[in-house]
Amino acid sequence: MFNTIGVIGLGVMGSNIALNMNSKGEKVAVYNYTRDLTDQLVQKSKGQAINPYYEVQDFVQSLKTPRKIFLMVTAGKAIDSVIDSLIPFLEAGDIIMDGGNSHYEDTERRYDELKTKGIDYLGIGISGGEVGALKGPSIMPGGDKDAYEKVAPILTKIAAQVENTPCCVYIGPKGAGHFVKMVHNGIEYADMQLIAEAYTFLRERLHLSVNEIADIFETWNQGELKSYLIQITAEILKKQDEETGLPIIDVILDKVGQKGTGKWTSIQAINNGTPSSIITESLFARYISSLKEERVFAETILDGPEMKQESLDKELWIEYIKQALYMGKVCAYTQGFTQYKMTSELYSWDLPLKDIALIFRGGCIIRAEFLNVISEAFQAQANLNNLLTAPYFAKKVKEYQMGLRKVVCEGINSGISFPCLSASLTYYDSYRTGKSNASLLQAQRDYFGAHTYERNDMEGLFHTKW
Amino acid sequence: MFNTIGVIGLGVMGSNIALNMNSKGEKVAVYNYTRDLTDQLVQKSKGQAINPYYEVQDFVQSLKTPRKIFLMVTAGKAIDSVIDSLIPFLEAGDIIMDGGNSHYEDTERRYDELKTKGIDYLGIGISGGEVGALKGPSIMPGGDKDAYEKVAPILTKIAAQVENTPCCVYIGPKGAGHFVKMVHNGIEYADMQLIAEAYTFLRERLHLSVNEIADIFETWNQGELKSYLIQITAEILKKQDEETGLPIIDVILDKVGQKGTGKWTSIQAINNGTPSSIITESLFARYISSLKEERVFAETILDGPEMKQESLDKELWIEYIKQALYMGKVCAYTQGFTQYKMTSELYSWDLPLKDIALIFRGGCIIRAEFLNVISEAFQAQANLNNLLTAPYFAKKVKEYQMGLRKVVCEGINSGISFPCLSASLTYYDSYRTGKSNASLLQAQRDYFGAHTYERNDMEGLFHTKW
Repeated sequence: MFNTIGVIGLGVMGSNIALNMNSKGEKVAVYNYTRDLTDQLVQKSKGQAINPYYEVQDFVQSLKTPRKIFLMVTAGKAIDSVIDSLIPFLEAGDIIMDGGNSHYEDTERRYDELKTKGIDYLGIGISGGEVGALKGPSIMPGGDKDAYEKVAPILTKIAAQVENTPCCVYIGPKGAGHFVKMVHNGIEYADMQLIAEAYTFLRERLHLSVNEIADIFETWNQGELKSYLIQITAEILKKQDEETGLPIIDVILDKVGQKGTGKWTSIQAINNGTPSSIITESLFARYISSLKEERVFAETILDGPEMKQESLDKELWIEYIKQALYMGKVCAYTQGFTQYKMTSELYSWDLPLKDIALIFRGGCIIRAEFLNVISEAFQAQANLNNLLTAPYFAKKVKEYQMGLRKVVCEGINSGISFPCLSASLTYYDSYRTGKSNASLLQAQRDYFGAHTYERNDMEGLFHTKW
Repeated sequence: MFNTIGVIGLGVMGSNIALNMNSKGEKVAVYNYTRDLTDQLVQKSKGQAINPYYEVQDFVQSLKTPRKIFLMVTAGKAIDSVIDSLIPFLEAGDIIMDGGNSHYEDTERRYDELKTKGIDYLGIGISGGEVGALKGPSIMPGGDKDAYEKVAPILTKIAAQVENTPCCVYIGPKGAGHFVKMVHNGIEYADMQLIAEAYTFLRERLHLSVNEIADIFETWNQGELKSYLIQITAEILKKQDEETGLPIIDVILDKVGQKGTGKWTSIQAINNGTPSSIITESLFARYISSLKEERVFAETILDGPEMKQESLDKELWIEYIKQALYMGKVCAYTQGFTQYKMTSELYSWDLPLKDIALIFRGGCIIRAEFLNVISEAFQAQANLNNLLTAPYFAKKVKEYQMGLRKVVCEGINSGISFPCLSASLTYYDSYRTGKSNASLLQAQRDYFGAHTYERNDMEGLFHTKW
């Protein structure tokens, strides 16, 4: 009997996807470039229908046609060589799926190449980390709709389920799935940084203990901030280091890495004229964190404000911080969804924004309660330009903006840096400024470069002899 | 008698460069793809030694060997086709110079291609707009040092002169010249936006008239803020619209364009791990400006703060704004020079930072008094990591930071957006934070993705079973 699906690449993510598929009744062929990972997985699967192959040809020939092959291989050239190794054994109508973090432009190139051979290619964004891969990730498939429909029964089964709805929906043509995953990760960067800034205020300005802060995050996780990242933050803050007995947060070095997708999100936004300041600030915050030695030195040279720090009313300020965090998140998600919308228009992808919000509710890293409201906003207005202007969020931010303003100002006066909260606020205030100072910039450009300008009161392009 | 140099591409910039060379005693061959611009220039040059050619071959053969050919052609494919058209007529040892805004990576590719043919290629950054091109721009040549030395007598003559020193210095190998010009433009974006924000505070928060603001910029242009951009801002604000009699600033539409180099600067910074938040915020401010219709709509939906605006002491606050602007500029230039330093290390270019600051003093758009101090800082410490930590600037920002803090907070409480001033402050405060919240981010990454972390107290990579 043939296997119903094959998985290539048996690192943690690939193994867990294979186990997940198997647990949902699929007969899974597995293959890895080196034998050891294959054997490990077979051992782990304890005699379930996970069938190992040690030659690509055997692997492919074990699959029921049209063959469905899921790649969980490191993004980059490895994907191309795996595809090359598969091609001799495939037939028209077979389907290759890339479940890694490939750049969506690479996915489009591969799609086009395989199209000429009659092979269907799906770029599948997957979020959820190791646990998600095993128990149900959020799945963002892009490519031809009819090819997707052939694998949809499997993908929707292995996806996270929220309110009996799978966190998997057809995203759009070609690279659309990987694009949506990429921006998901950008939003994730911003969300993480915003949470870290809230933590900093609680710790550095309200002088709360790590335990007290953990409790606050736990409380927040009962309300409208409820989300995976808030939940794990509470757990992290409760964790003690076994070596020292200190809170583990206090022994971890303050240098953050990054693996590409957040960076790509900012670059794509910049190339496409999309304001993505909050995601980009979160990236720069990571870059500054990596200059640890310089920061330690700079601290001895560069002074902060000379103001006396007054003690603050804890209860009141915890509420302000909650409001600031919520509003920062709304602004960050707004920028991310604006990037979806603008890119969707650029490529005529017709991205289903309301569905994207829904599949983010489970499995993925940014899963959060308020994605329901985001989805409803796009359901009410499919062509909504900006989430902030949706009635629910407009009302919310009207209420919460003072909290954000207070927190950012207090940070400024205390010399504590809140790059993403600040960027959220300047984004909010810039976006609601009908008449801005941009006329001065355009005048400067016309002055030194004869770039011309438009006028408020008549059509045309004008140049002044300054 | 042979021509001593040739110019191809006779738009405004190219024509002015040719006239500039000619006025410095060069015998200039000129060629343009279409005849009309050539004829216009010849007419304009009034019988000076500017010699028109209408065939590439004639143009090339009119030049003294080694031939020196200066391209002033729109960046992109046009450059490649001009080079292709020249090659059949060139000999080893001839020199092609690209004086346009080419991406430095394109310049590196062209350099490599021409190298195989024995032809020297110089990528030459030029800043100064139309007037600079004619009267003396700032010139940033990159390529082989010995090729540069053959054209140096001409380039240094046509460059702006400051204190008897030409604003032209050998920058480094291959694309280094165009790279330095690219980041120059990024700094220019930030500088312009910072000035626009200072203008906004004076206008919207201090309720000064456009004329009063022009006077303030004129006064600032007498002191440590003295710079070309401050000077032209004063002139722009004094200019009346002939149609309406209004200040011209009030009839210019508030949508700013951009032409690529600022965008490239941010993308290069992001790709190379350089924190370039201020330049990038200035780019996003332009993007938001272009959403004019959305902004006008959002203004009707999104509320600002409810606080009462108190009237402010004008004299005091004008001083705060001056301090804020100065400190914002220092932070923006610091980020730009950090980008020079980090990229120089990446490519082993050995960029002469102190000389770069010096050649920016004249001709170019960001020419400013305080570039002298920047140059001195790098003269004192060639390996300075960060300008802010140079004694002069550390002292200055200690004094001025309160001005910046006050202006940004007042903006926040008034609902006025200052994206670049805010980004300057968060950059400053982030950079001087020895121990940051990045440990929380790294813990989150380890939690959901097993990305591991380093510790404060021991070597190695660690992973917690959360």
